[in-house]
Amino acid sequence: MKIAVLGTGGGARAHIAKLAGLGHEVHVGTRDPEATLARTEPDMMGTPPFAGFLAEHSGIALHTFGDAAAASDGLVISGIDGHNAVAALSAVADQLAGKTLIDYAVPYIYRHEPEHPWPTPWGIMPKLEPVDTDSLGEQIQRALPRTKVVKSFVTQEQSTVVSPDSVGGGDHTMFVAGEDAGAKQQATDLLKAYGWSDILDLGPLVAARGTEMYAHMHSAIGFGLGHQFGGHFGIKVVR
Amino acid sequence: MKIAVLGTGGGARAHIAKLAGLGHEVHVGTRDPEATLARTEPDMMGTPPFAGFLAEHSGIALHTFGDAAAASDGLVISGIDGHNAVAALSAVADQLAGKTLIDYAVPYIYRHEPEHPWPTPWGIMPKLEPVDTDSLGEQIQRALPRTKVVKSFVTQEQSTVVSPDSVGGGDHTMFVAGEDAGAKQQATDLLKAYGWSDILDLGPLVAARGTEMYAHMHSAIGFGLGHQFGGHFGIKVVR
Repeated sequence: MKIAVLGTGGGARAHIAKLAGLGHEVHVGTRDPEATLARTEPDMMGTPPFAGFLAEHSGIALHTFGDAAAASDGLVISGIDGHNAVAALSAVADQLAGKTLIDYAVPYIYRHEPEHPWPTPWGIMPKLEPVDTDSLGEQIQRALPRTKVVKSFVTQEQSTVVSPDSVGGGDHTMFVAGEDAGAKQQATDLLKAYGWSDILDLGPLVAARGTEMYAHMHSAIGFGLGHQFGGHFGIKVVR
Repeated sequence: MKIAVLGTGGGARAHIAKLAGLGHEVHVGTRDPEATLARTEPDMMGTPPFAGFLAEHSGIALHTFGDAAAASDGLVISGIDGHNAVAALSAVADQLAGKTLIDYAVPYIYRHEPEHPWPTPWGIMPKLEPVDTDSLGEQIQRALPRTKVVKSFVTQEQSTVVSPDSVGGGDHTMFVAGEDAGAKQQATDLLKAYGWSDILDLGPLVAARGTEMYAHMHSAIGFGLGHQFGGHFGIKVVR
């Protein structure tokens, strides 16, 4: 398939590399391809320049967000951070029309809480916006009514999402939510190709409130296990 | 031990019955013992009158919240609903001083969303208050600075908390969070007596934000599994 991945950060790269390895034609979107390729220093997350990643992975095309979305023959994965996702995706709504968009972003707002350095050891406590009575997944769906939005991948690090077997022999659970059954099936098929065997359909997109809000628990579990950033673990729904 | 359970609802009864079965002296607290004993009809949740429950379980004493807390020799479990917990517990702060209080409430506010009947099939969508930047566990700890608050039990139905073996042979994870290591050990010892083997310490009480906000995901998983109210399942942290 021709699959678009929007974003060039660490999470997006996990999907780009995995999809290319599975034999898909991967079209990567970025805000400004020239600027992305010109970067020579790691970003604030420590992610090395994208040019080096491209050099190590053949057959990957770099485009603008719109051109990457247009090149997809049906499936688009958004790796755009939660703070910018609605605006960036709305700007390419025409190119995304009719397609399935998998969104895995947590709508984090980072804010400093000097009196409350925990749970993030670096002294910054993220909050979520939206939260509780709305979700980023629902916001994206409202902004892109012609696109079939699926919220998935959001409950784990993307490095684990593309390699579920790396944790507990793969015996953990991935979740999908969305309004369109066919789009959820596309996401489910992709997850099976990634190696997932336990994929639970949570129902309509309102369930994204649950999977996005799980972010704070995921962080707490990670710190509880002694990790500093993120964590190499999963959760299994035992029933 | 002399253990106090504050509340007479379904969740509280699960703990009362289990603790009595384990040989503890259980002191149950309610706002108005006479009114609790006088009730002859099921409540709005369908829970039958408490008098019948008392008749079926020997050796259980019913008191006011304050008298029950005072009768405890160190451990108190709060089964007071999240909306009323801070006020009800603050009113008996003296009786709770120096004791360990395990709080398992989700701070739900029920509100009607006629345009959004899902995820609750009965057309009422709960929201959380506080959420994201605060938690009920932290609020209770701030209101009761002389009490050692532990947030636990909150990620599952209380019927499963007291009988972990009833799901997946007991191979799922329970969480504790709190400021006091000794209090968390008391909660952990109680959980082991209940049958838990995988108990993860998430660290300080701020982690209660994560376990309380997991409520929406817990609901979504329950509906995804086809349950109507709550669910008979657990989550295992796979690492």
